[in-house]
Amino acid sequence: MKVEYKLIKTDKNSKARLGKVHFGDKAYDTPMFMPVGTQATVKTLSPEQVKACHPGIILANTYHLWLRPTPEVVKEAGGLHKFMNWDGPILTDSGGYQVFSLAHNKKKDITEEGVHFKSELDGSKLFLTPEKSIEIQNTLDSDIAMSFDECPPATADYNYLKNSIERTLRWAERGKKVHNNPNQSLFGIVQGGPYEDLRRWSAEHTVALNFDGYSIGGVANDDECKDDMYKAIDFSTPYLPEDKLRYLMGVGEPVDLVESVFRGVDIFDCVSPTRLARHGNALVPGLRIAPDGTPKENRINLKNARFKHDFTPLEGGCDCYACQHYTKAYIHHLMRCGETFGASLLSIHNIRFLIRLCEDMRQAIAEDRFLEFRDNFYKNSKSPQ
Amino acid sequence: MKVEYKLIKTDKNSKARLGKVHFGDKAYDTPMFMPVGTQATVKTLSPEQVKACHPGIILANTYHLWLRPTPEVVKEAGGLHKFMNWDGPILTDSGGYQVFSLAHNKKKDITEEGVHFKSELDGSKLFLTPEKSIEIQNTLDSDIAMSFDECPPATADYNYLKNSIERTLRWAERGKKVHNNPNQSLFGIVQGGPYEDLRRWSAEHTVALNFDGYSIGGVANDDECKDDMYKAIDFSTPYLPEDKLRYLMGVGEPVDLVESVFRGVDIFDCVSPTRLARHGNALVPGLRIAPDGTPKENRINLKNARFKHDFTPLEGGCDCYACQHYTKAYIHHLMRCGETFGASLLSIHNIRFLIRLCEDMRQAIAEDRFLEFRDNFYKNSKSPQ
Repeated sequence: MKVEYKLIKTDKNSKARLGKVHFGDKAYDTPMFMPVGTQATVKTLSPEQVKACHPGIILANTYHLWLRPTPEVVKEAGGLHKFMNWDGPILTDSGGYQVFSLAHNKKKDITEEGVHFKSELDGSKLFLTPEKSIEIQNTLDSDIAMSFDECPPATADYNYLKNSIERTLRWAERGKKVHNNPNQSLFGIVQGGPYEDLRRWSAEHTVALNFDGYSIGGVANDDECKDDMYKAIDFSTPYLPEDKLRYLMGVGEPVDLVESVFRGVDIFDCVSPTRLARHGNALVPGLRIAPDGTPKENRINLKNARFKHDFTPLEGGCDCYACQHYTKAYIHHLMRCGETFGASLLSIHNIRFLIRLCEDMRQAIAEDRFLEFRDNFYKNSKSPQ
Repeated sequence: MKVEYKLIKTDKNSKARLGKVHFGDKAYDTPMFMPVGTQATVKTLSPEQVKACHPGIILANTYHLWLRPTPEVVKEAGGLHKFMNWDGPILTDSGGYQVFSLAHNKKKDITEEGVHFKSELDGSKLFLTPEKSIEIQNTLDSDIAMSFDECPPATADYNYLKNSIERTLRWAERGKKVHNNPNQSLFGIVQGGPYEDLRRWSAEHTVALNFDGYSIGGVANDDECKDDMYKAIDFSTPYLPEDKLRYLMGVGEPVDLVESVFRGVDIFDCVSPTRLARHGNALVPGLRIAPDGTPKENRINLKNARFKHDFTPLEGGCDCYACQHYTKAYIHHLMRCGETFGASLLSIHNIRFLIRLCEDMRQAIAEDRFLEFRDNFYKNSKSPQ
């Protein structure tokens, strides 16, 4: 189903936006955190367990599904929704991020035509182009497809980025031309690193192509560069239309959600809640200040011996299934034993944690107290650990 | 809650029994297959997912819980039910089977007092006695505790078994003496290998101690000796009281369920449905005849390439969650990707498969056509594969 975004209101004292995304007769509130189902499954969870976290859109990865099970299999299954038994909206990324970061050989070859690289599964040679990415996403039949963009390394300099955003724009145009799924929206992606003029150029030219929504790219996985992330948003959102969804890709740290919503972003995705879970971590309220001063997600590791006799929930007052029915001691036991139900419980809590954060932010925007909410968020920060 | 068994009827043409087990105001039908939650979790599943398979009692392993998280932790949690969020009945085994088969060093030392052995977790020295086993189970607060017995190797000869059953009887008596949980039933275990006189002696003397139910032990994990298994049952059940539950430990092959019910057994447990699942296997109707002629469970392995484009359910007509919502192609994809939700779906199907088999057997007994049911079961057998 194509997406329609309705801006309900903007916070009186910030750029934070309260909105609604409609997919046919289904509607979901923004700001929204989207859980990630990389391989057509949110790791360790059933769709029902994901739904109980009250998500809106979920994400699936084009790169992974292209390689396995292949778009053809998904098409034969009747599309991604039917294949994975998910009747809510699905957003697919373009595959670009994985090609630029995960693909088997680091010696990827970026040409004007597309990117040559090797499969991380079997080392076979692959070639991803803007047209191919859109064709795959059309076939997967997600609700929102993303344009194929270059994800430049964090170390890229101004001149590299200038060339890159020009090519990314040409790729966006080529992808838009071949997009051919009337039930699927197509989003454009703004790049340009932390440079104001590049972000503006990229945003204005991408918006001129008239996409169904816009993403701010090139910010994820840069823990050390939160300032660059915030600059990227600050320099992009002024040039994005008010009546279209704004998506910050690959971001899932609570502090980044708050700072991005503050700057006018609507939706987010990140693998962090399920990845943290598999390593035994539960998100908990507050901020953790890393030794270098970076504010990070606050978390506890349930493998830690101090939880052996802790019969309290992961987070007091949390309404998630894990917190309602299980103690830290039980989850500690499961994680120590390598039982996957431990990772399931932690995944549920972590996903619900980020979704609750979004719910709280929506409430704050509705009541024009987002600045107060943001202040309180920082007041809960903890000392370096 | 203590168990009470009510025999409803016996099949007109066999020893197959239709019954009901009551735990306070909860009642469950027998014959019954019990899923195994070794470490206080049925592997890869939530309690809700297990419940959707319509089980009655589930099993947890005393040996594992003794080592981790320890009975003390379970007690602090308020007992095993609360710890693992399972409000249905739980049976704990005695730990004996694990001590005799899994424990770290094969050089276990069996004395009249108990068994010295090494922990499989850290190699530390442990000593399990009948009193200790019962004390642990009392503390875990399961609904049914099992007596600590010797599980002799399949190769044990007549003389060894004769000494063993006499010691097992002394151990049963010692355990019964210290049993001290008014909400917990205690079962005795009949041993004696495939020998009629030993089984009779063990059954008669164990029954004389007046337990709340009886188990037939020493039959599991002996794929090659189905005849010995059936002999063990045939030589035990005539001496077991009609008004007590009869439990065949560690048995989960469909053909063995049918043959044991035929011989008057009521309940079973086995790790096979979840273990098969983790290796990609789904139980399917029919029998597979192994090259040596042994009838085995029929199964398909979802990792097999032939399922890549198979958009049918694991088993047509199956009412389980996996078969109702997912295709073989999807589960093939999950198993190929190493996604645990694949193992969850296969576990659900396999558990439900064995529970459905029990439901079908109950129906057959109710209608006095168990022999016909058993005949049809064999007619569905397949040639050697």
